[in-house]
Amino acid sequence: MGSRAFLWCRQNGVHVLGVVVAFEDKSGSQGSLQPIVDLTKADMARVNTTILSRTGSEVTMIPEVANHLISSGGKRLRPILTLATAQLARYRGDGHVKLAASVEFMHTATLLHDDVVDESDMRRGKPAARMLWGNEASVLVGDFLLGQAFKMMVEVGSLKALDILSTAATVIAEGEVAQLAAAKNTATTEDEYLAVIRGKTAELFAAACEVGPVLAERPKDEQAACRSFGMNLGIAFQLVDDALDYGGSDAKLGKNVGDDFREGKITLPVVLAFRRGNEAERDFWRRTLERGEIEEADLEHAIGLMRRHKTLEDTIERARHYGAMAKDALALFADSPMKSALADVVEFCIGRAH
Amino acid sequence: MGSRAFLWCRQNGVHVLGVVVAFEDKSGSQGSLQPIVDLTKADMARVNTTILSRTGSEVTMIPEVANHLISSGGKRLRPILTLATAQLARYRGDGHVKLAASVEFMHTATLLHDDVVDESDMRRGKPAARMLWGNEASVLVGDFLLGQAFKMMVEVGSLKALDILSTAATVIAEGEVAQLAAAKNTATTEDEYLAVIRGKTAELFAAACEVGPVLAERPKDEQAACRSFGMNLGIAFQLVDDALDYGGSDAKLGKNVGDDFREGKITLPVVLAFRRGNEAERDFWRRTLERGEIEEADLEHAIGLMRRHKTLEDTIERARHYGAMAKDALALFADSPMKSALADVVEFCIGRAH
Repeated sequence: MGSRAFLWCRQNGVHVLGVVVAFEDKSGSQGSLQPIVDLTKADMARVNTTILSRTGSEVTMIPEVANHLISSGGKRLRPILTLATAQLARYRGDGHVKLAASVEFMHTATLLHDDVVDESDMRRGKPAARMLWGNEASVLVGDFLLGQAFKMMVEVGSLKALDILSTAATVIAEGEVAQLAAAKNTATTEDEYLAVIRGKTAELFAAACEVGPVLAERPKDEQAACRSFGMNLGIAFQLVDDALDYGGSDAKLGKNVGDDFREGKITLPVVLAFRRGNEAERDFWRRTLERGEIEEADLEHAIGLMRRHKTLEDTIERARHYGAMAKDALALFADSPMKSALADVVEFCIGRAH
Repeated sequence: MGSRAFLWCRQNGVHVLGVVVAFEDKSGSQGSLQPIVDLTKADMARVNTTILSRTGSEVTMIPEVANHLISSGGKRLRPILTLATAQLARYRGDGHVKLAASVEFMHTATLLHDDVVDESDMRRGKPAARMLWGNEASVLVGDFLLGQAFKMMVEVGSLKALDILSTAATVIAEGEVAQLAAAKNTATTEDEYLAVIRGKTAELFAAACEVGPVLAERPKDEQAACRSFGMNLGIAFQLVDDALDYGGSDAKLGKNVGDDFREGKITLPVVLAFRRGNEAERDFWRRTLERGEIEEADLEHAIGLMRRHKTLEDTIERARHYGAMAKDALALFADSPMKSALADVVEFCIGRAH
């Protein structure tokens, strides 16, 4: 890891610590999104057109709020995965475009609702929609996008794809509620944490990857392989995200380091640090995360404890494990540029942590 | 209308005026839900079982929050309408049970999200879920119920019914956003107000009534007739609700009189009073509803202005008009106990206002 600098910034009237990390260039081992972006470029242009037209409404607040988030430079990783796995499964129809747009709408709706739940001020480096239009608009525009997502799925007409994506919608919400219930509980186990991120993050990756071969009516084992790829990639993605929240750079993440800490979110870097720490350290975690009594130097101290117990490194090691499972899930497919592009996505997601 | 008493009560640290109205018994002209409840009793028992089993989750907060609202004595009018119109269309299958449960889940999700949007303290005479579990749980459990609703629709497998209900989901959200955008605008026209309530209320009534004959694969004109019945009943229902908010009784409504006034909601009683009033009266509406500067005697004064301009009576007259359209929509069906029970529902909804 490169050089590291700490800086103080003011947020909500409280001084908080930001960490700026200079990134070393580890290209080669870091993977890239470029191959998959190139291979899905033509389809993605159609997805973008669909997204734009489906956020249209006479109620002008809807496209305003929706496009604030949708056009704010997210990577659109989930719809890309739907297009990529459809292509991997040699799908020849048009349905994958609308399903990819549905997946992005489901994701955007989740982000809008999450910002209300987390009381976030920032999202992707811009003010969260709720800061500009209020909680009400975030809830309702999220609902509108969910409705549009289902409408597009219905238009595609595959009951199997509808089943996968509507199941994902309930599992995501269930995962979010589970996270809410587990919030501030430092006794959370690694397994409980994994169950939460399977629900709130990995399920949508899994569904996004499964619907491609389903539309193409490929054999069950190929559908299951793509689902497994998505699920394990999603877990790895979230693990790295959780590590980055304590070690990434403001600028790169588009949100402030330490958000999870200030919200009392129990993520794997904390779960491991709590377990590996002594009683005084556990008292620190209980005071800050359970009771929310956070003082100026606490984030710095938290990161220090994580470094002492190597919990950020080990969180990323765990991510590497799920990344390996994701890549192996695709082993039954013949080698192809798309298969290798999907493997690059795994490397890219893990490489973000360095 | 019977005798009327005003009383002051304290809400959020502000004294607000409650109005208690003694109800005259106008049975006969008032209609009743009893016939339709009796005719759908057996199916409704299955819907209730489905609702209970589909709110189950290992994440215990989900059934807690969902059942707080679902078991709090709503009339379940919307699922009853789905069962009734399926029966009217002589549907012989099982799908109407899951679709009725879906309709109730969509409605419950909307209520949970509305409470967050409106910052409501009470719902159906009990503390709103958000007061007990927080905004987060209301948003997320609402999302879970929406997901479950779609899952059940997918299980029924009718793409036409899926299309109707997913379209309803987007139209409802659109109507709610439109209401948000129109909030506090006293220059709202009656037509604009109608467009909002068509979206936020009547669309779900229409969809609930349309899916029955769709499942039964009845001719288009019967599907359109049932949709039209639901749409016009829904408009009448909301008009009466809006009148009741200024003239009903706390106890009967399960919420406080004047909620809409305090939230700055522009409903038909206000639209008419604003238009019919003089400039001083319009200043009053602008101060209270647009600028939210509400003093203790203002609700009493608002109700006084509505009485002077007969806007509550005329709102109910408008409701009667849509109620008549609803009943005429069913004219093409042969007379039957169910057809007459559906007409009774219309009378009951309008009769609530007296």
